[in-house]
Amino acid sequence: MGETIAIVGGTLIDGNGGVPVPETTVFIEDGRITKVGSTDQIEVHPNIRQIDAQGKWILPGLVNGNVHLLDGIMMMGRGGIEYLARFEGNYYKVIEEAAQIALRGGVTTVFDTWNALEPVTIARDRIASGAAEGARIFFAGTLIGMGGPFTGDFMRPSMQARTVMSRTFADRMDAMFEVGMGRHLSTLPPAEVRPLIREYLERGVDFCKIAVTDHLVGLLGFRAPYFTFSERVLDVLVDEVRRAGVPLLTHTTSLEGLNTAIERDADLMIHATMTGQAPIPEETIEKLLEKQLWSEVQPTTIAQQAWMDSVDHPFADFSGRVHHENDVRMIKAGVPLVLGTDAGCTDPDILEDMSQGELHERPWTLGEDHFVWMQAMVEKGMDPMAAILAGTANPAKAYRKFDELGSIDVGKLGDVVVLDQDPLADITNMRTLSHVVKEGREIDFHGLPLSPLVTAYPRTANVLD
Amino acid sequence: MGETIAIVGGTLIDGNGGVPVPETTVFIEDGRITKVGSTDQIEVHPNIRQIDAQGKWILPGLVNGNVHLLDGIMMMGRGGIEYLARFEGNYYKVIEEAAQIALRGGVTTVFDTWNALEPVTIARDRIASGAAEGARIFFAGTLIGMGGPFTGDFMRPSMQARTVMSRTFADRMDAMFEVGMGRHLSTLPPAEVRPLIREYLERGVDFCKIAVTDHLVGLLGFRAPYFTFSERVLDVLVDEVRRAGVPLLTHTTSLEGLNTAIERDADLMIHATMTGQAPIPEETIEKLLEKQLWSEVQPTTIAQQAWMDSVDHPFADFSGRVHHENDVRMIKAGVPLVLGTDAGCTDPDILEDMSQGELHERPWTLGEDHFVWMQAMVEKGMDPMAAILAGTANPAKAYRKFDELGSIDVGKLGDVVVLDQDPLADITNMRTLSHVVKEGREIDFHGLPLSPLVTAYPRTANVLD
Amino acid sequence: MGETIAIVGGTLIDGNGGVPVPETTVFIEDGRITKVGSTDQIEVHPNIRQIDAQGKWILPGLVNGNVHLLDGIMMMGRGGIEYLARFEGNYYKVIEEAAQIALRGGVTTVFDTWNALEPVTIARDRIASGAAEGARIFFAGTLIGMGGPFTGDFMRPSMQARTVMSRTFADRMDAMFEVGMGRHLSTLPPAEVRPLIREYLERGVDFCKIAVTDHLVGLLGFRAPYFTFSERVLDVLVDEVRRAGVPLLTHTTSLEGLNTAIERDADLMIHATMTGQAPIPEETIEKLLEKQLWSEVQPTTIAQQAWMDSVDHPFADFSGRVHHENDVRMIKAGVPLVLGTDAGCTDPDILEDMSQGELHERPWTLGEDHFVWMQAMVEKGMDPMAAILAGTANPAKAYRKFDELGSIDVGKLGDVVVLDQDPLADITNMRTLSHVVKEGREIDFHGLPLSPLVTAYPRTANVLD
Amino acid sequence: MGETIAIVGGTLIDGNGGVPVPETTVFIEDGRITKVGSTDQIEVHPNIRQIDAQGKWILPGLVNGNVHLLDGIMMMGRGGIEYLARFEGNYYKVIEEAAQIALRGGVTTVFDTWNALEPVTIARDRIASGAAEGARIFFAGTLIGMGGPFTGDFMRPSMQARTVMSRTFADRMDAMFEVGMGRHLSTLPPAEVRPLIREYLERGVDFCKIAVTDHLVGLLGFRAPYFTFSERVLDVLVDEVRRAGVPLLTHTTSLEGLNTAIERDADLMIHATMTGQAPIPEETIEKLLEKQLWSEVQPTTIAQQAWMDSVDHPFADFSGRVHHENDVRMIKAGVPLVLGTDAGCTDPDILEDMSQGELHERPWTLGEDHFVWMQAMVEKGMDPMAAILAGTANPAKAYRKFDELGSIDVGKLGDVVVLDQDPLADITNMRTLSHVVKEGREIDFHGLPLSPLVTAYPRTANVLD
Repeated sequence: MGETIAIVGGTLIDGNGGVPVPETTVFIEDGRITKVGSTDQIEVHPNIRQIDAQGKWILPGLVNGNVHLLDGIMMMGRGGIEYLARFEGNYYKVIEEAAQIALRGGVTTVFDTWNALEPVTIARDRIASGAAEGARIFFAGTLIGMGGPFTGDFMRPSMQARTVMSRTFADRMDAMFEVGMGRHLSTLPPAEVRPLIREYLERGVDFCKIAVTDHLVGLLGFRAPYFTFSERVLDVLVDEVRRAGVPLLTHTTSLEGLNTAIERDADLMIHATMTGQAPIPEETIEKLLEKQLWSEVQPTTIAQQAWMDSVDHPFADFSGRVHHENDVRMIKAGVPLVLGTDAGCTDPDILEDMSQGELHERPWTLGEDHFVWMQAMVEKGMDPMAAILAGTANPAKAYRKFDELGSIDVGKLGDVVVLDQDPLADITNMRTLSHVVKEGREIDFHGLPLSPLVTAYPRTANVLD
Repeated sequence: MGETIAIVGGTLIDGNGGVPVPETTVFIEDGRITKVGSTDQIEVHPNIRQIDAQGKWILPGLVNGNVHLLDGIMMMGRGGIEYLARFEGNYYKVIEEAAQIALRGGVTTVFDTWNALEPVTIARDRIASGAAEGARIFFAGTLIGMGGPFTGDFMRPSMQARTVMSRTFADRMDAMFEVGMGRHLSTLPPAEVRPLIREYLERGVDFCKIAVTDHLVGLLGFRAPYFTFSERVLDVLVDEVRRAGVPLLTHTTSLEGLNTAIERDADLMIHATMTGQAPIPEETIEKLLEKQLWSEVQPTTIAQQAWMDSVDHPFADFSGRVHHENDVRMIKAGVPLVLGTDAGCTDPDILEDMSQGELHERPWTLGEDHFVWMQAMVEKGMDPMAAILAGTANPAKAYRKFDELGSIDVGKLGDVVVLDQDPLADITNMRTLSHVVKEGREIDFHGLPLSPLVTAYPRTANVLD
Repeated sequence: MGETIAIVGGTLIDGNGGVPVPETTVFIEDGRITKVGSTDQIEVHPNIRQIDAQGKWILPGLVNGNVHLLDGIMMMGRGGIEYLARFEGNYYKVIEEAAQIALRGGVTTVFDTWNALEPVTIARDRIASGAAEGARIFFAGTLIGMGGPFTGDFMRPSMQARTVMSRTFADRMDAMFEVGMGRHLSTLPPAEVRPLIREYLERGVDFCKIAVTDHLVGLLGFRAPYFTFSERVLDVLVDEVRRAGVPLLTHTTSLEGLNTAIERDADLMIHATMTGQAPIPEETIEKLLEKQLWSEVQPTTIAQQAWMDSVDHPFADFSGRVHHENDVRMIKAGVPLVLGTDAGCTDPDILEDMSQGELHERPWTLGEDHFVWMQAMVEKGMDPMAAILAGTANPAKAYRKFDELGSIDVGKLGDVVVLDQDPLADITNMRTLSHVVKEGREIDFHGLPLSPLVTAYPRTANVLD
Repeated sequence: MGETIAIVGGTLIDGNGGVPVPETTVFIEDGRITKVGSTDQIEVHPNIRQIDAQGKWILPGLVNGNVHLLDGIMMMGRGGIEYLARFEGNYYKVIEEAAQIALRGGVTTVFDTWNALEPVTIARDRIASGAAEGARIFFAGTLIGMGGPFTGDFMRPSMQARTVMSRTFADRMDAMFEVGMGRHLSTLPPAEVRPLIREYLERGVDFCKIAVTDHLVGLLGFRAPYFTFSERVLDVLVDEVRRAGVPLLTHTTSLEGLNTAIERDADLMIHATMTGQAPIPEETIEKLLEKQLWSEVQPTTIAQQAWMDSVDHPFADFSGRVHHENDVRMIKAGVPLVLGTDAGCTDPDILEDMSQGELHERPWTLGEDHFVWMQAMVEKGMDPMAAILAGTANPAKAYRKFDELGSIDVGKLGDVVVLDQDPLADITNMRTLSHVVKEGREIDFHGLPLSPLVTAYPRTANVLD
């Protein structure tokens, strides 16, 4: 990483929201940005590695504020058993593959808000140390108070799953995801919860996500939210997260859940607009503005929503109807928003099951997800610049990493993407990736993932050595 | 009801907990107790109708603090579809039949804490007016915040049920039970909840029961309790119930749920010892004692529990394991307890499905349920006198009806049972019913129910006119 | 029935397939046709009751060759539990109501090829004796070798049904339909099967239907047919049916099943074109022509098929794709065809579940079913006259009742319908019913059913006496 | 394999059923038996590799006449999805591992009667060529006329499986097992079936197994058997198998199925005593004796059956009740019997699910299965010598391989096992394996399997490279 690299002559959209600056050069030395300025003023020695950005656009490396690199969305539907069985022993490789797919789309940093603690720790550390390629990972590990994929708390056809699978395997998987912080917590009084959360926070997680409300959406639909904890237990959890000094995320699926999160000044509220189809009232929006709390939202594009509606998809309300209206009103009000997608490394068999309509602008297809997010938000009325900030500076700020990443400023990590066409003119130009630089290292993003495991497809039934 | 009746010469257990008084006579005129005293002192004119209680025991009419006369326990398991289809249009008759079966067991008053509002209103009023026979009914109607029997919130195989039944029928049934106060409430902010509960309380209910926690036990087991409402919505509900002046009941399935109920000074906490298999800590028991709040508990006998354990019954934890320990500790500590059983008028086909082990001392078989309750509690360490109070004075007090019923005192309703054998010597002697008097009217309890509808069994497939 | 009635002056389509004869008068005395001739030649005494058929069309009473008056199609999908529970004890009334609904559509005779033996016997006999109104019923009772509605052999969501219902009830229902002739037969050797079928044939059934192949369509789809019996057991069954002298019907769901039925010279092959999506080869069609065996087919109209395809309906292959092609080729080849529909008295809740698309020209809606059948067949290329014969003379012939019914000829039962408009010009004119006469008695068909039980709708939840 | 080996001085049980011969020496050269005789008469040169069998017993290498090395029994219950996903691409290795586990138990030859064609071909050929270790494999490939594991024809919870798994994956698996010979065949007329079976028989299978009846046991229980084919299609299949010159096996699950197989002179009838709980009549047993046809039976031991009955196991009737009686009567009558077990390489997670009761003498645990079989049959009345023949000479004869294997005779393959204790004194002494020789090569059977894949357990969730 000792290399120096110069991105020369592009129009800079630096992640601070100002007017784009043409003819800009960005210098990265030893992985950090050392100079940003006019091409006229910054001289580039011919020995220095250069990226010619003439006529192109320079942006900060993209940031996804909510992924589940082991594919969480898929585990809520079909495919969980086969996915977890197929890759057992190799989950950290799957996570690395996912981090590479994200990186292929220009995403240099991802925040994984639910994953199996052990493999995501391995993958994070291997990528951080350079032992593996991929987008930089920060993670929460488990979702405090929620069961594993086969508990019925989470996975849509979970109870059916347990009728056809090994109990031992199901229990092992649930334990791997829960790491002792699952639904059992909701049976305990505050005094017993405190040492457990304290212990968990010492396991090296980068932030902590609390299940304020349930995840029964897959089982019971979006309109019947429950609270996971009593408020006094919730307060213990929040207290310990604050004490550990890491960002506090909330999982909420109802308006009252959201209000509860706001009262606790959560750093980032995941799928904040998912309010059980109850419109978010003005007073709640005002609270968000007043407190300047970050909300992650999960929009769908017009085309995808139309498809979902047409097949009466169980997730049609995920971002449709009132949830869509919530998105629109949040955008209009200028609530601080963060790009997040729930995307992960989907099993290709599951993708193969899908129709063209389902695949088109699908919000959970990793590598495409952030482009789809920005497009969907612009369709809902967001300014393209705001959409870019939602996928760069905002998550960095929400996760308190803005001193390190999220904008192109001297001293920050050298994460840069170069686009062929102007994303402000048309947000879908975000897809015109020309160069991807991570910590000053140019990434051969077309070559990712490096050693496909999940995405080596189609599968050959019998491979001779 | 203008008749006068004298119960002469028995040993009086008057429901106030004192030493039994032998050779007592009870006078009832115009449905109310007018004299209670020594046989020596009370002269009985030969024209007056007499019940000879010589060598027998006189007790207050029994009171069951928690029933679901349309059989709620059954609806959580198998049989809900056929039961509701078979008797549609006749639910109030089913409820009356249930009230008659209860009366057959000496129960002169029942408190129905979850039922379909319209038919239970009809049945209550018909019994109160004398148009129908049966135990006196007081009711809550719906369980505030909970879905109907086919929503998946409640019925164990509910999702399967909806795959085999008419959606129209399922929706009609759910609506009948929810009367607009179902899970939808949990999506709303306080301001929208207040007018709804206010309107509900104007529908003539005798008390109100709030779902502090979920009822997913049938779906997800006893160890994963959720909260139904945010605390600020819960506070609105409690506030309105207080304002309406009716008793406040809580449904809780977790320790934190129980603690939340105690904080609100609930009048009666249903299945209070069902704490998601977390032991109730001493401090919680102390709170119950200090505040003298009423708890309903649902014990099983040793034999029934042994059977449940032997077949790994999904309800084995209902009152087993930690829940059983909770019962024992509550009894020992002297927490104020109320007899309640969840019993209702079970479909005989469902009873026919059961083994002898399941039927023996089954806690939910109406007419037997209160006897089984008392036996189970005595087995757990309760004093027989305390068990009798739990099924007479205590529920009357919890529901604020003790000025009218629950003990044999001058001025109260003339509800009396006469037993052949001493229940304090052996609590199973509660079954030795000799006479049942309700509001001064002797009941031919052997002849109940009067016009069996549910219990006219076996069913003949094709009945010619 | 002693009345005399004259239908005067209509155009006669007599059920023998010849050119319609205008200005015809039909005389019915004592329930039988006594004269058919030109209005000129037949004098009608003014005292005789007359139906003025001037400008109208006179046809034989319609005949449906395959119904299940207790709604069998519904029991294969949703609604079976509630239907059978709701009307238990009253099945014969449901069957009579169904027979009245059929009669309302001009159908004077139905052949019920699968039903519960006891109630259909009661209903047949009550209608035959005049104790109840309705279309004349002939029936098979059970389907030899097939399980009841909750066995999994028959009902689509049957295994789910058994998980939510009383086992006792399910067993009682299965036993009522199977009457000892269910799947158990397939385990037995020929010598043990013979006395059982012999005994069954002595129970007063009008004909006998054998399950040559399975009915797992609901469970496993239309493409995986099994044979129910070994050929030597099948031969015993056929032998006994022949010996009893009643018509032999076959249930087949595969080409090889059909070929097996043809080899046995079955009198009527139910849903003959349902060949597991294998096209019926020419040689099989030639066999049918050569032997002049009767085939019942179950077409859907273009509109209904389009709807089924649009929603990927599990029954879309019922008469679609190859099955449709089979229909077309059978019609073209002139194979002897019989109208049959599987229709029964559907629960209105189930109808309420349906979209407009599903209800429009639905082939199983009793009272409409035969009109839809004729329309569908004409759409597939059948001559309107042939369609009329399929619903009059043909079933009568197939069931060996043509000496009594199926055409307007002297000596036959006085079953006649009068139409306002010409059905040969447009087959949908079959719906222009003007008069219905059954055995010489004019039916107030608009007033049917007489005492609605199933179809008294919407249902009121609580009906006070 | 050019080595020479002498097994010296043991008591010979040669597989021909005669009196054991003490002090015998067996010479194997170039993989074939070259001398068998008295130790006195056969001189063993000191250079020759010797196995000292003094005081031990010498038997032919054991032969299992019915296995499914990819675990078929498991796929009928829980675990199919995870097993097939976990090992996709490595099935032939799983099969080899299974063949090694069999060999570890002294089984030198297995006949696999249902498996995925491609991987079992690879494994057979690799073992035959010496590229892989393991018991010699002969196989049928698919079961003609039966669907793959996720079709609902086969796997118990198959329909649930498809609700939680990828359709693409399920279809790929089904296709891999069916290789075009699945249930589709049952829709076709004879002329279309003939070329398909002919083509299949050219794919290198060692024998052919036809589904005379269904495999719905998992779905619908053992008492409702269907026939898969019409007799004329069955005759085409049998005809082509005869023409191809390979042994004909039948799958039957009913008495009439068995009778049908007997009529076709099947070489081996798999689970012949599984007659849908109908007792096999004397005349059928006489036919078997008269024709000297081979029957495979699948007994359970007394202990295993007691466990199955105690938990009301869905497979309790597999060999219990009438099926057990059938076994006993077949043994007593002296019907020619073959050892077969359906065993395969079970997923250890599934074994971990099981209680001790389930694992004890479980008939499907590969490596133990044949010992359990012999024990169970002796418990049912079989002579120990007959049990040994059933697991050596008989399957060799049934599969027409007796000229190569199944007994210790000069010229045959050098497959020999040496036992420490006398199996005729106590059949459980079959487990006292001392030496295993396959084609003259001594096997380090304690070291098998060589490279555990399935049985490398417990599984570590995340294995770093």
